[in-house]
Amino acid sequence: MSIKGNIVVGQSGGPTAVINNSLVGVIHEAMQHEEFGEILGMSHGIAGILNEELVDLRRESAETLALLRDTPASALGTVRYKVSDADYERILNVFRTYDVRYFFYIGGNDSMDTAHQMHALAASRGYELHAIGVPKTVDNDLAETDHCPGFGSAARFVATAIRDTGYDTVAMGDSSPIKFMEIMGRNAGWLTASAALAKEEPDDAPHLVYVPEHGVTLEQILGDIQGVYDRLGHCVVAVSEGLADPEGNPLAHRSDSGEVDAFGHGRLGGVVEFLDEAVSQSLGLRARFDKPGYLQRSFAWLQSSVDREEAYEVGRAAVRAALAGESDKMITLVREPGPTYRCTMGLADLEQVANHEHILPADYINETGNGVTDGFLAYARPLIGGPLPPYAKLARHLLPKRPSK
Amino acid sequence: MSIKGNIVVGQSGGPTAVINNSLVGVIHEAMQHEEFGEILGMSHGIAGILNEELVDLRRESAETLALLRDTPASALGTVRYKVSDADYERILNVFRTYDVRYFFYIGGNDSMDTAHQMHALAASRGYELHAIGVPKTVDNDLAETDHCPGFGSAARFVATAIRDTGYDTVAMGDSSPIKFMEIMGRNAGWLTASAALAKEEPDDAPHLVYVPEHGVTLEQILGDIQGVYDRLGHCVVAVSEGLADPEGNPLAHRSDSGEVDAFGHGRLGGVVEFLDEAVSQSLGLRARFDKPGYLQRSFAWLQSSVDREEAYEVGRAAVRAALAGESDKMITLVREPGPTYRCTMGLADLEQVANHEHILPADYINETGNGVTDGFLAYARPLIGGPLPPYAKLARHLLPKRPSK
Repeated sequence: MSIKGNIVVGQSGGPTAVINNSLVGVIHEAMQHEEFGEILGMSHGIAGILNEELVDLRRESAETLALLRDTPASALGTVRYKVSDADYERILNVFRTYDVRYFFYIGGNDSMDTAHQMHALAASRGYELHAIGVPKTVDNDLAETDHCPGFGSAARFVATAIRDTGYDTVAMGDSSPIKFMEIMGRNAGWLTASAALAKEEPDDAPHLVYVPEHGVTLEQILGDIQGVYDRLGHCVVAVSEGLADPEGNPLAHRSDSGEVDAFGHGRLGGVVEFLDEAVSQSLGLRARFDKPGYLQRSFAWLQSSVDREEAYEVGRAAVRAALAGESDKMITLVREPGPTYRCTMGLADLEQVANHEHILPADYINETGNGVTDGFLAYARPLIGGPLPPYAKLARHLLPKRPSK
Repeated sequence: MSIKGNIVVGQSGGPTAVINNSLVGVIHEAMQHEEFGEILGMSHGIAGILNEELVDLRRESAETLALLRDTPASALGTVRYKVSDADYERILNVFRTYDVRYFFYIGGNDSMDTAHQMHALAASRGYELHAIGVPKTVDNDLAETDHCPGFGSAARFVATAIRDTGYDTVAMGDSSPIKFMEIMGRNAGWLTASAALAKEEPDDAPHLVYVPEHGVTLEQILGDIQGVYDRLGHCVVAVSEGLADPEGNPLAHRSDSGEVDAFGHGRLGGVVEFLDEAVSQSLGLRARFDKPGYLQRSFAWLQSSVDREEAYEVGRAAVRAALAGESDKMITLVREPGPTYRCTMGLADLEQVANHEHILPADYINETGNGVTDGFLAYARPLIGGPLPPYAKLARHLLPKRPSK
C-alpha cells in the first residue's frame, strides 16, 4: 500500500502537440484513486517549485481537461533551467511543506535527470517520494523506449509539410526547381528522416534526406541535387538543422566576421540559407527554402491519433506505477512483435535514460547518407497515426503535336 | 450562340491550396456543354502553349478530378515567364492550329495581362477567341474583386500557425519570450494581417502585426515589443516579408559586402533574422522565429471550406461567361450586403485588373501601424471557413504559499 500524500506534476523542455495529453492522463488517473490528496501543477516546470507557484489542478473543469487534449504546447508552462545542488535541497523542502509524495515530470533527458536526482536526494534523507518520469520529445532521442510521445505528431507535420511543399515545387518547374526544408533535431535525425514518410511513389518528394548522424560534404550534396534535377527537373531536400560534415563539424557556420547588419554582426544563417546560396552559386539553379521552425512541435491540427493516445496513456501509467510503489523510473513504450502495430507500457531506470541520447541507428540510413531505409519507414509509419490523405496527380495524356495551320 | 471550338486552360504564378478547384471547376462545367470539343490543359502555363505541351483533360478520370480538389499546388504545372510580342503571335498560331476558341487562365495580375493581350491580338486579327481570367492569389492583391481564391486558405494557415506557435511561446516563458513569424506578401499585407484572426482574447498572440503598407522604424518595433513584454512576459509578432521603413525602403537589407560564407557573399537574411538579432542585441531578450515559407500557399490540410468552394465556382463561372459570349473579362467575387457572408459572381475588365495592385486600405490598419482594425477582421473572418478549433487554457488557481516545514 502506498503512502497517502499530494501529487505534483510538471512539464519541461520543448513543448509538443500532445504533451497536454500526458498532463491530462496524470490528472484523470490520479482523480480515480483516493490515496492522492492535492494534484498540484508546477508553473513553468521546476521554476514553479522553486518559486512556489503551484496550480490547483483539481479546480480545473472537466471541459478544460477534455479540450486540453486538443491544445498544443505545455499548458502549465515549461522551462529550460539547469537545476543546482542547492535547488534540489530547496525542492525537497517545498515537497515537505506541501506534503508532496508523488512527483511526475513530463520531459526529455534533462527532466529525467532532475527526477532521478530528486529521487536520490529524498531517499538519502529518508523522505518517501515516488518520482516517475513521463517521456516527451519531438526529437525522439530518449533511450530505453521504442519511441517518445510527441514524435509521431511532429513526424506527421514534417511529412505533410514536405509533401505539400513538394507538390508546390513540382508545379513551379524550372521557375524554382530546388526546395530545402530545415527540420528540427540538432543531434538526432529521427524527425528529418520522417520526411521520407511523405513519399507515395519513388520519385515523390523528398528526393534527398540528410540527417546529422551521417556526415556529408557540400560536394556530395551538390552532386546529389544535380543528379536528381537532371533526372526529374526538380529536387526537394529534407535537411536536419544539425547537418554535419564527415568530421562531425557543422556544415554551415554562423560567421561573426562580416559587416552585414546594423549591429556589425554576421547575419544569422542556418543550414538551408547556406545550401540555398550554394546551389545558386555552384549549380546556377534557383533554390528556395522553408523553415517551419516551432510549428514542427506545436501544430495541433496534425496530432497523430496514435501519438495522442500514447501521450495520454503514459501519463496514466505513471500514476499507476507510483501507486504500485515504483520510483526512479520512466514509463516506456514497448512495441509488441507482430504485423499489427501495438505498444504496451514498461519501466526503465531514470538513470539509464538521463545519461543517454538515442540517435538514428546506422541501418535506418542508406549507404550514401542521402536517404532512409525501408527499416526506418516500417518503424516510423505506424507512429504518425494513419496514412496522409490521398492526393491526385494528372495522368497527363499529352496531345500529339499538330502541323501548324 | 457561341462558336464551337476547343478549350485551353492553364494555371500561372504561385500555386495555392485550392487552385486545382478552379481547374476542376472549368473542366466540370465544360463537360456539361456540347459547344466544347477538346478540353486542353497547358503544361506549365503559357510555356505549355509555346512548346505545344497540351494535356488532354477529357481523358482524366472522375476520381482524379474529385481528388484534385483536395490536392495543393498547380496540377498542370505553373510558370513565371514574361511573354514577349513574338510569343503572343506564336500563341495565336497555336490556338488556330488546335482550334482553340476558349482560353481560361487561372492566375494573378500578370496572367490577367496575358489573357488581355491575347484577347486584343485575336480581335485585331479577326480570330474569335473568348479569353476569361480566373482569379487566384494568396496575396489577395487583385483589384475589382472582393477577395481572391487562394487567400482564405492561406489566411487560415497563417492564423493557425501563429496561434500554435503563440501557445508554444507562452509556454516557454522567459526561456525564449519573443517570437517572430515571417509572412508572405511583399507589397500587400493581407496575409500578414490575417494573423490577427488567431486572437480569441485581447492578450492572445499575435500581439503585434506589421504590414508593408504602413512603414515602421526599427525603434518603434523594439519599443512595441518591450511594451508587450513588460506587460505579458512574452510577445508574438507577425511580420510581412516586405516590411518597410516610413520612407518605403526595406527594413532589412541583404548585404553583399561582408565575407560571411563560402562564396564571399552576404548571407541570405530576411526580415525576421534581422529583427531576431535586433531584439537580442538591443533588448537583451531571447527571440526565435518561424519562416513557414511556401507552406503558406501549399498546406492543403488547412483549406478553407469557403475558399475551396469559391475557387471551384469561379472556374465554373468562367466557362459559363465565355459561353454567353464574354471575353476580355475576369470573374470577380462580389460580397452581398447583410449580416451573413455571401458572395455572388461578377465580371471585371481584364485591363482594370492587370494594371492595378489592391493593397490593404488604411482603415484596416491601426493608427500606430502595429495591428489591424475590427473592420479588417470583419472582412477577413468569413473567408477562412469557420472559426479555428477551440483550445483550452488552464484557469490556473494558484495555491497560497505555505509556511516552510
